[in-house]
Amino acid sequence: MSQGRPPRLTVLRLGHRRERDKRITSHLGLTARAFGANEMVLAGDEDPSPLKTWKSVTDRFGGDFVGKYEGKPMSWLRRASKSDDFTIVHLTMYGQPWRQTIGKIPVNKPVIVVVGGTKVPFEAFQVSDFNVSVGNQPHSEVAALAVFLESWLGPIDEDSIFSGAQMKVIPSDGKKVVIPTEEE
Amino acid sequence: MSQGRPPRLTVLRLGHRRERDKRITSHLGLTARAFGANEMVLAGDEDPSPLKTWKSVTDRFGGDFVGKYEGKPMSWLRRASKSDDFTIVHLTMYGQPWRQTIGKIPVNKPVIVVVGGTKVPFEAFQVSDFNVSVGNQPHSEVAALAVFLESWLGPIDEDSIFSGAQMKVIPSDGKKVVIPTEEE
Repeated sequence: MSQGRPPRLTVLRLGHRRERDKRITSHLGLTARAFGANEMVLAGDEDPSPLKTWKSVTDRFGGDFVGKYEGKPMSWLRRASKSDDFTIVHLTMYGQPWRQTIGKIPVNKPVIVVVGGTKVPFEAFQVSDFNVSVGNQPHSEVAALAVFLESWLGPIDEDSIFSGAQMKVIPSDGKKVVIPTEEE
Repeated sequence: MSQGRPPRLTVLRLGHRRERDKRITSHLGLTARAFGANEMVLAGDEDPSPLKTWKSVTDRFGGDFVGKYEGKPMSWLRRASKSDDFTIVHLTMYGQPWRQTIGKIPVNKPVIVVVGGTKVPFEAFQVSDFNVSVGNQPHSEVAALAVFLESWLGPIDEDSIFSGAQMKVIPSDGKKVVIPTEEE
């Protein structure tokens, strides 16, 4: 299904709430990283906790994934939309079915994937080039992001994307094997 | 990729912690339901909150997904393993790559998918017929479950599985449309 990767892939998490969403947002960023995003932009409550988690995992498991906070995400998104330098994909249970939509998303310029919280401003739908749903049942933004990225981008080259790792997990039949790489 | 569905699909969430995992576990159950599981078994801290969330979503959005609590999950799993009436699949970042494994999982008897928390007893690896990893990067059990179920079972028939819904989301191009069904 994959037609290549966009030059840069950013995930924007709207409406983070410090207490309630701490772990969901943390998982969301790790999922973005694991499925090939370059960058995670946190919006909503300013909260160092998920940013720390993402950095810690990247430091240990490699790659150059970056997290940052954006205080005015809708202005930021509006500018990105107007510039026409980005494709904006909004994941929402109200959007178009992802299986039919992923083939239409261009990969010739950077992509911003917008993932909502509880209250997504209607403008997020309007500035997006694609409003995409992963099923029409309520489930989880973490699940939606994972299935969307996996379906859209297909297998990623973990060794290449997560270079410079201090730790690496070796697939096995039931035994945990985490080894430090010898030299980096 | 799908070779049909098992007669029953149960997801077991090990090691739930009431405060820390509240929303992750809640999302995990909704993800299980949305991607076609019949049942979610909660283990770890006894906590009515995720069970209520799952029931509320099922009442409104249809289907017969059930959630329940199991106080002795490892005994339960051991019995299931010994009976040979179930196939047990354990999702773990230390397992075998999912793309190569999903084709080997039989669908002729009920399947239990085990999803860990922080500390998974080693016995969970031993009693499982398949230890499966969704990538070898740390991310999220919600993401892993979603990608695994979607890859393994493929498209599900939402209208059939989620019959009896009071609410249904109609895919659209940016406008939220939630309508009550006329008669149920």
